[in-house]
Amino acid sequence: MSVKEIPYKIYLEEDEMPKAWYNLRADMKNKPAPLLNPGTLKPMTREELDGVFCDELVKQELDDTTAYFEIPQEIRDFYKMYRPSPLVRAYCLEKKLDTPAKIYYKFEGNNTSGSHKLNSAIAQAYYAKQQGLKGVTTETGAGQWGTALSMACAYLGLDCKVYMVKVSYEQKPFRREVMRTYGASVTPSPSMETEVGRKILAEHPGTTGSLGCAISEAVEVATKSEGYRYVLGSVLNQVLLHQSIIGLETKAALDKYGVKPDIIIGCAGGGSNLGGLIAPFMGEKLRGEADYRIIAVEPASCPSLTRGKFAYDFCDTGMVCPLAKMYTLGSGFIPAPNHAGGLRYHGMSSTLSQLYADGLMEATSVVQTEVFKAAEEFARIEGILPAPESSHAIRVAIDEAMKCKETGEEKTIVFGLTGTGYFDMVAYEKFHDGKMTDYIPTDEELQKSFANLPKVE
Amino acid sequence: MSVKEIPYKIYLEEDEMPKAWYNLRADMKNKPAPLLNPGTLKPMTREELDGVFCDELVKQELDDTTAYFEIPQEIRDFYKMYRPSPLVRAYCLEKKLDTPAKIYYKFEGNNTSGSHKLNSAIAQAYYAKQQGLKGVTTETGAGQWGTALSMACAYLGLDCKVYMVKVSYEQKPFRREVMRTYGASVTPSPSMETEVGRKILAEHPGTTGSLGCAISEAVEVATKSEGYRYVLGSVLNQVLLHQSIIGLETKAALDKYGVKPDIIIGCAGGGSNLGGLIAPFMGEKLRGEADYRIIAVEPASCPSLTRGKFAYDFCDTGMVCPLAKMYTLGSGFIPAPNHAGGLRYHGMSSTLSQLYADGLMEATSVVQTEVFKAAEEFARIEGILPAPESSHAIRVAIDEAMKCKETGEEKTIVFGLTGTGYFDMVAYEKFHDGKMTDYIPTDEELQKSFANLPKVE
Repeated sequence: MSVKEIPYKIYLEEDEMPKAWYNLRADMKNKPAPLLNPGTLKPMTREELDGVFCDELVKQELDDTTAYFEIPQEIRDFYKMYRPSPLVRAYCLEKKLDTPAKIYYKFEGNNTSGSHKLNSAIAQAYYAKQQGLKGVTTETGAGQWGTALSMACAYLGLDCKVYMVKVSYEQKPFRREVMRTYGASVTPSPSMETEVGRKILAEHPGTTGSLGCAISEAVEVATKSEGYRYVLGSVLNQVLLHQSIIGLETKAALDKYGVKPDIIIGCAGGGSNLGGLIAPFMGEKLRGEADYRIIAVEPASCPSLTRGKFAYDFCDTGMVCPLAKMYTLGSGFIPAPNHAGGLRYHGMSSTLSQLYADGLMEATSVVQTEVFKAAEEFARIEGILPAPESSHAIRVAIDEAMKCKETGEEKTIVFGLTGTGYFDMVAYEKFHDGKMTDYIPTDEELQKSFANLPKVE
Repeated sequence: MSVKEIPYKIYLEEDEMPKAWYNLRADMKNKPAPLLNPGTLKPMTREELDGVFCDELVKQELDDTTAYFEIPQEIRDFYKMYRPSPLVRAYCLEKKLDTPAKIYYKFEGNNTSGSHKLNSAIAQAYYAKQQGLKGVTTETGAGQWGTALSMACAYLGLDCKVYMVKVSYEQKPFRREVMRTYGASVTPSPSMETEVGRKILAEHPGTTGSLGCAISEAVEVATKSEGYRYVLGSVLNQVLLHQSIIGLETKAALDKYGVKPDIIIGCAGGGSNLGGLIAPFMGEKLRGEADYRIIAVEPASCPSLTRGKFAYDFCDTGMVCPLAKMYTLGSGFIPAPNHAGGLRYHGMSSTLSQLYADGLMEATSVVQTEVFKAAEEFARIEGILPAPESSHAIRVAIDEAMKCKETGEEKTIVFGLTGTGYFDMVAYEKFHDGKMTDYIPTDEELQKSFANLPKVE
């Protein structure tokens, strides 16, 4: 054959796997704004951050000029256990949609955490271990991040304390058990174990918790315990750095077959998956070497990019964390109770926020019933049962492919399939039974939430 | 490098994937005994079987001389969606056990059914479609087979009716929802929808069902409905034929790196996974070309090979199915209620039974607390959360590797990791909480169960 036939799944060989992470910020003209100390409103220094995060991770967090960070051999070995992840050509979906578009997805769900979160979990746990720490603390919502971190800590022999949003803790006992299988301790948040937890419980006795609140608890425990640091699964620059493995593998796989995407689509909660997937493509765009349409897809019920304010805000409810400049709905924002799955964080990664503000990517929002329609269609055609989060990207990928059908354009679409939905069957059940509803916050609600934004400058 | 370094995961290229299934029976001197008509006790004819199974599958069921069956292109295309499955070199486990043994596992859990069952589900659904049928019926216990069949039917546009053992239906609502996502109808068994279901419910009002009973219902519905046939996920010759893809891929992957296994280990319930994994290796053994230790691992609570009788028995509780000659605990045997997971069928594939009777493979049984210990250890070291069924093989693989540590032998061990345990967290929870118990049936209990074996010859 003259043209290399593209297989259903493109796997890189082990020796083709990326040996360094790519730091998108190095190529950004407008760098993401620095984190601010919530007390002084001055940029957080390395010393201040060292108390919360591992030293090496602080370096990565603050470095916006080094383009590549070598991936330590031990992390590369761990990656080999579940990576390279396949880049799948969605032949079946294309056929079913009868579209001239060519659709690819990078599938990150083939590991026990069920998502891409493991890429950063192992990196963060590794640096904690290197620093001689006893363990790490974190929060988890839907549970992917907590599971991923538990796996990484089990592998390295680190202690792992997870604060799990209470509503998820109760509704997702299986997730909790997976974390316990990996030896983590899992505490429903807010808890009576921390000052901030006790305070929140006193103020809101019946609360089922939020990510922002669980973050506050995990940070408090990390900073008050000898030999512990806090780690976070999204939003931070370091996380996007580690997740660049997704995009680097995707690009290497496409390059092998001479494929250049037109549109790159990812779901966006805190931005870890999207930031990772688009990294090398955005890099080319920033350096003027290539152009791509890049689309962030967020839930209409938690629309930080599409309806949020680009401003400094607290990263957590308890206001113990640094302030970040980002598109935010206000740190008190909690999506309506009918919202299923993740993508429920009030803010968006500073890096992605800056790129969006600079017009380098688009954003769109979708309601969840449309998301689950796409999820079910995709499951039946492509076999993989997608996570609700990932299905946001599927929805928009299908929509873009259908536009191609109308126009006859043979666009190449790449989207991130971040994970599987095995632990989200309660939401699927609601959808099957016609009991799933949509909620879009009103302008009034958002204005009310914006009123609590801190006054900076 | 002079010796080709073995990667963590060996993936075949698409064009290296097997193009034909291997029919182990063709190389057996002592063929498995034929199915008997439960009424006449005469071998089932093709015409009799055609009423229950699809025509092409009946041909495959009865053919014990054709060594290779070409895999139709449409099935091969479907296989490409989730195959080749990786053959993993368990470097991390080897290191942790500090054993000179080399351990490989063939991981079949990377698809939404979470197990190897999909390999035969797509084949059976394909032939049903080819025959112009409307749909198929089946039973499911733990749920992997039902999920797999739902996926295959969704892909081909066939109707799928699943009778799910009532206790699983109630304890595994997520499994049920996955099947519904793929458009299957799922009925708890025994149900009032069938004659046999009503009869069983009248006799045992509070029963939570059994596989044998669900089979009876599914067969009744298939034979009484226009355009439907019954399909089965294990035990049958045709299933072992389709599952040979596991062993063929495993052997091709090992051959690529010049590796010859010493020991091959698989869990055994009805025999679908084990029969598939060992097929090409057993073929070599039967033809005198090579020798391997082959070990079937079964639960001590359902020990058909190690403690059963090699005799003709009913395949189902309702006694509507043909009789098979197999190692059996009696068709009325139901594992103790504390038994977790699958591998709960009272009999064993006729093919494997004959091989075992002829001394061509070994069998051993393990108690479930030991199985879950191995499962948890494996999860923490290798990252994959294994299904309880698969963990039987892990247990014995670890035990064999530890023997190598004692003797210093560098044996190569290959085992089948049939699936993931995401839907088995209730059992894991019991294990973590120290509430899991073991039960080994007494000789008296087994004798009582054997008393109901049909008198044949």
